[in-house]
Amino acid sequence: MKAPRLPRQNIYLPAGFSFSAARAGIKASGRPDLALAEACPGTTAAAIFTRNRVVAAPLEVDRAALAASSGRIRAVIVNSGNANCATGRAGVRACEKVCREVGSLLGIRPAGVFPSSTGIIGVALPVDKIISQLPDLVAAREASEQGIARFARAIMTTDTCPKLASVKFRSGKMAVRILGIAKGAGMIHPQLATMLVYLFTDAGASPAQLRHSLRQVCDQTFNCVSIDGDTSTNDTVLLLASGRSGVTLKGRSARNDFAAALQQVCHSLAEQIVSDGEGVQHVICLSVERARNRDEARQVAQTVAHSLLVKTAWAGADPNWGRILAAVGRSGVAIDAARLSIRIGGQVVCRNGAAHRFDEKRAHLDLLRPRCEVRIRLGRGAASVQFLTTDLTTEYVRINADYST
Amino acid sequence: MKAPRLPRQNIYLPAGFSFSAARAGIKASGRPDLALAEACPGTTAAAIFTRNRVVAAPLEVDRAALAASSGRIRAVIVNSGNANCATGRAGVRACEKVCREVGSLLGIRPAGVFPSSTGIIGVALPVDKIISQLPDLVAAREASEQGIARFARAIMTTDTCPKLASVKFRSGKMAVRILGIAKGAGMIHPQLATMLVYLFTDAGASPAQLRHSLRQVCDQTFNCVSIDGDTSTNDTVLLLASGRSGVTLKGRSARNDFAAALQQVCHSLAEQIVSDGEGVQHVICLSVERARNRDEARQVAQTVAHSLLVKTAWAGADPNWGRILAAVGRSGVAIDAARLSIRIGGQVVCRNGAAHRFDEKRAHLDLLRPRCEVRIRLGRGAASVQFLTTDLTTEYVRINADYST
Repeated sequence: MKAPRLPRQNIYLPAGFSFSAARAGIKASGRPDLALAEACPGTTAAAIFTRNRVVAAPLEVDRAALAASSGRIRAVIVNSGNANCATGRAGVRACEKVCREVGSLLGIRPAGVFPSSTGIIGVALPVDKIISQLPDLVAAREASEQGIARFARAIMTTDTCPKLASVKFRSGKMAVRILGIAKGAGMIHPQLATMLVYLFTDAGASPAQLRHSLRQVCDQTFNCVSIDGDTSTNDTVLLLASGRSGVTLKGRSARNDFAAALQQVCHSLAEQIVSDGEGVQHVICLSVERARNRDEARQVAQTVAHSLLVKTAWAGADPNWGRILAAVGRSGVAIDAARLSIRIGGQVVCRNGAAHRFDEKRAHLDLLRPRCEVRIRLGRGAASVQFLTTDLTTEYVRINADYST
Repeated sequence: MKAPRLPRQNIYLPAGFSFSAARAGIKASGRPDLALAEACPGTTAAAIFTRNRVVAAPLEVDRAALAASSGRIRAVIVNSGNANCATGRAGVRACEKVCREVGSLLGIRPAGVFPSSTGIIGVALPVDKIISQLPDLVAAREASEQGIARFARAIMTTDTCPKLASVKFRSGKMAVRILGIAKGAGMIHPQLATMLVYLFTDAGASPAQLRHSLRQVCDQTFNCVSIDGDTSTNDTVLLLASGRSGVTLKGRSARNDFAAALQQVCHSLAEQIVSDGEGVQHVICLSVERARNRDEARQVAQTVAHSLLVKTAWAGADPNWGRILAAVGRSGVAIDAARLSIRIGGQVVCRNGAAHRFDEKRAHLDLLRPRCEVRIRLGRGAASVQFLTTDLTTEYVRINADYST
């Protein structure tokens, strides 16, 4: 298999993990669709899952595995091309069978295997195709950039590029590494959406410590992005800690350093996911400021980020702030239009709820850039939120109007 | 002005109303953009407005007029091409000035004039252009099908055709007529969206009786449609009753007949609005059944009708029921996926939350029709809701990506 090109950045490989990928023929394209990460003994884990009430089979198996293993995970097995969702009891059994096989090949308990699936909903998982590739997949694993790149590529669906981020920080004389690998594209929305994120670190931490850090960081990163407002049945963020760096998260300073580094990795992955959203031409950094609290700021941001009229205006680089104003007005937050102001790029376009003279050409040029800031001030308090979102293009519709047919 | 073509149906003209239209040059296209309806003395009125917190100037003036006149309205003046929204105090003054002029030309109090505007947000209303056309507009009014057709056409924005519906029913020896004229297109969503609806009847009723009927009927019709999920700042439904038929709504039987007839008119207008949604290729009649109550049924219907992934699948006539299932799952209603079933056209495609064998080709053909039924059963109770929605096409994005530029 040809080694895929990596994004131009340093990749720090945390000690204690190895990676591989294979082609199981689940994707009609014949591209790699099976990925494995193995973790060394003693690795701890924490995960966050979709809030959708309809949940794919692997998520049920994951929850059971985390409980049965007390948060000790030794392997991650991911397939793309099939979500194994809405597949009933048979779907869960299919997933468990894959985990048993992975466990047996690696000599670990099935409850130490964490499965994920992404792709079409409602089609039976092709278990036999997967199982026949497992011996090669296990044999191919390596603790290398190449292994990481292969893993990153095999979990992609409509992503156009692999998503990776890593950081290294020092703790005394020792170095801790965090590596994140994600897939995203469509269906990205707060409370997670078909987004799979795997975070690997060689810090040492209890599952409870990992859970705490992960929740905090997800709230600021993955839960502040939206492409199309749909929340998937399969979303998963998994954090694995091998402890091989020798640094533990016992002290407050180590915990803070770790949280900051994790935030950096997750922020970068969130940005990469949004930038690679289906059909996205423009990323919008949406700030909602002077809200009474963070929840209402987020509610306004979500409504604006979810408005078809706003998103299509952005697609046309159209500084039609009236649509933004109208979206804020229907957000459910008791805003007073007369206190509202909106800024697009460098200019105020609406002040106190009414038109403010601005250079339309300049605003149009600002919106034409791959990245533009839009700031909404509610005039209600001191809270704010930063939200990453996108325009909605004809290309998005084209991609999603013929996915399964 | 050439008489526009009417939809092929009988138009019943309620006694006591006359109509006209003019070109004030607000629309860049030079198409008619000013419409007037005059009502005879004694006409009563009730109205329902958008729930958006950002509200256009004419809606403020309308509320004040209804209060000051105790629900006695003598004229409706509508301009298209400019929403007179986010225009501050100046916008309200501009609107009041137009109403004063109309009142003076018709010899009625300004509080008897009910204004509406629809079009772009945040641009000052061109008052002088409007006022210069008012004498001709007033002189041209006529109680005829032609007048109605001209009114219907002048209130259009991105609508591709005028929207009219009317019914006649007998009450003893007398006949009551109800006529509805609407404009819609994009931005249609529950709690009203840039949708202007004018209902004229020659029944006699108090403003309170009209309000009661209007609320009931709107809940079942205009609040059960969604094109893009955006709620406009200008939505208005106005019901005017001249009393000229000699039939009043005092008796229960007359009230019931009236409500049924009004429902018929509004249902037809709602259907016309959805069918003419921006870029719409397919209208979907979405039923959510076996819900615990009507509110949760509507919540599920709205989430599905609002899902980009579902709407783009419909654009491709793609029977991808997994996206419907995922949207139901994130609706906020505590559904049990294992009790859920989905039907597309004539076939069950998902039973008990899992794939159910169906003829994909046939489902594709069903979805290719201009109208297709999608039924979701929640297995939670006995309540249901009927919802009209649409697909989301590249054409919608194209229309909305260059509206103001």
